Amino acid sequence: MSAKIRLYVEQALGQGQPVPVSRDQAHYLFGVMRLDVGAAVALFNGRDGEWLAQVTEAGKRGGTLVCETQTRPLQLPPDLWLLFAPIKKARTDFIVEKAAEMGAARIVPVQTDFTNSERIRQDRLQAHAIEAAEQCGGTFVPEVTDLQKLSRLLDHWPADRQLMFCDEAEAGSALRLTSETRGKPWAILIGPEGGFSEAERKRLHTMTEAHVVSLGPRILRADTAAVAAMTLWQQALGDWA
Amino acid sequence: MSAKIRLYVEQALGQGQPVPVSRDQAHYLFGVMRLDVGAAVALFNGRDGEWLAQVTEAGKRGGTLVCETQTRPLQLPPDLWLLFAPIKKARTDFIVEKAAEMGAARIVPVQTDFTNSERIRQDRLQAHAIEAAEQCGGTFVPEVTDLQKLSRLLDHWPADRQLMFCDEAEAGSALRLTSETRGKPWAILIGPEGGFSEAERKRLHTMTEAHVVSLGPRILRADTAAVAAMTLWQQALGDWA
Repeated sequence: MSAKIRLYVEQALGQGQPVPVSRDQAHYLFGVMRLDVGAAVALFNGRDGEWLAQVTEAGKRGGTLVCETQTRPLQLPPDLWLLFAPIKKARTDFIVEKAAEMGAARIVPVQTDFTNSERIRQDRLQAHAIEAAEQCGGTFVPEVTDLQKLSRLLDHWPADRQLMFCDEAEAGSALRLTSETRGKPWAILIGPEGGFSEAERKRLHTMTEAHVVSLGPRILRADTAAVAAMTLWQQALGDWA
Repeated sequence: MSAKIRLYVEQALGQGQPVPVSRDQAHYLFGVMRLDVGAAVALFNGRDGEWLAQVTEAGKRGGTLVCETQTRPLQLPPDLWLLFAPIKKARTDFIVEKAAEMGAARIVPVQTDFTNSERIRQDRLQAHAIEAAEQCGGTFVPEVTDLQKLSRLLDHWPADRQLMFCDEAEAGSALRLTSETRGKPWAILIGPEGGFSEAERKRLHTMTEAHVVSLGPRILRADTAAVAAMTLWQQALGDWA
């Protein structure tokens, strides 16, 4: 028995554990995907790894899955946060999806001096992160936080968390990601389309945890920069090495 | 005088060169953006660098720009092709946009054994590459070729062009991008969502020019894989180094 459908659920998973199916999930599994009793589904909840489960009840308004065997252990990503300034809806969705695929542990939308958006739909962005984890075979779902002011975040910056930021106004270098900072908690900060303000740049440059990194000679859109920066980080210090 | 609008044109650019404005461009420049005589526009054509031009005639159906000074020389990207299997429309558009931003010299949609699409809209994809170059400040526009069969492309593979490919079925390593292959022509091949067929994998693995590269422990969507692979390549062998 193998499963073609991967589903994120909130309930605990374990040998013989029954998992109730919500109305929305029932619509998807039994309506759209036409699964019936006996069919297999892969389940994960971000905590207990991936489980092969069997449909034991299938109804229009709900049903039950029962966990049979663990197919993959929980694999946590490195302790990497992605901070980014929300932009247009489609590109914001895209950044969240990519951050989940690329293995960020936490996704933090930040309001910078040049950020236009005052609000985000945290629930919608969290749903995008879940969908990305379902698609990319991950067993972990990064938390998407509410929108936070960058200045306030930097006021309370966690001790020892390194910060990689990509400053278009400065050359920077990819080589400053040295092994001294391997194994430490990290964050990547992607600026808004207009870049950082002079005050923000000054502040970031004086932080001892900050590392300016170059993303090449062409100007990248924020969503491209996010994937490129996470690639460099995963390659140098994360779980791609 | 500085220009907020960057426009790709096909005509030659040079000191004092008049550039006729097409009906579509006139609609954009004089209608949407409300430029008038005397306004500045940055022009590039992929061959002559970037020029600051001034509007000398502005009409509903056309107009004229005159080149004043070259603001940037032509900057060619490294000799890198991006080969990818077209997927859903939005993600195909996205891959083309990202390839232009990340500095691919040529974008080649390929039909693999597991590719669903039989056709692409080459003109639409080329327009996306142009728009990306306008946005990202590039002075070069990569050519988007017509859809080609991967097998036929490999039959006539150019001598000495190295091929980086990301095979989900194999571990691979990012470290095989050594300096021996620096300065050579390269191509990156991104597989379709279903991966490569057994026959394709066998063939690729026997090519002396082929380098299998790992993109980490999570499965990446094709568009994410394209940006990540180009990042690794630009960082190791391209113009980010």
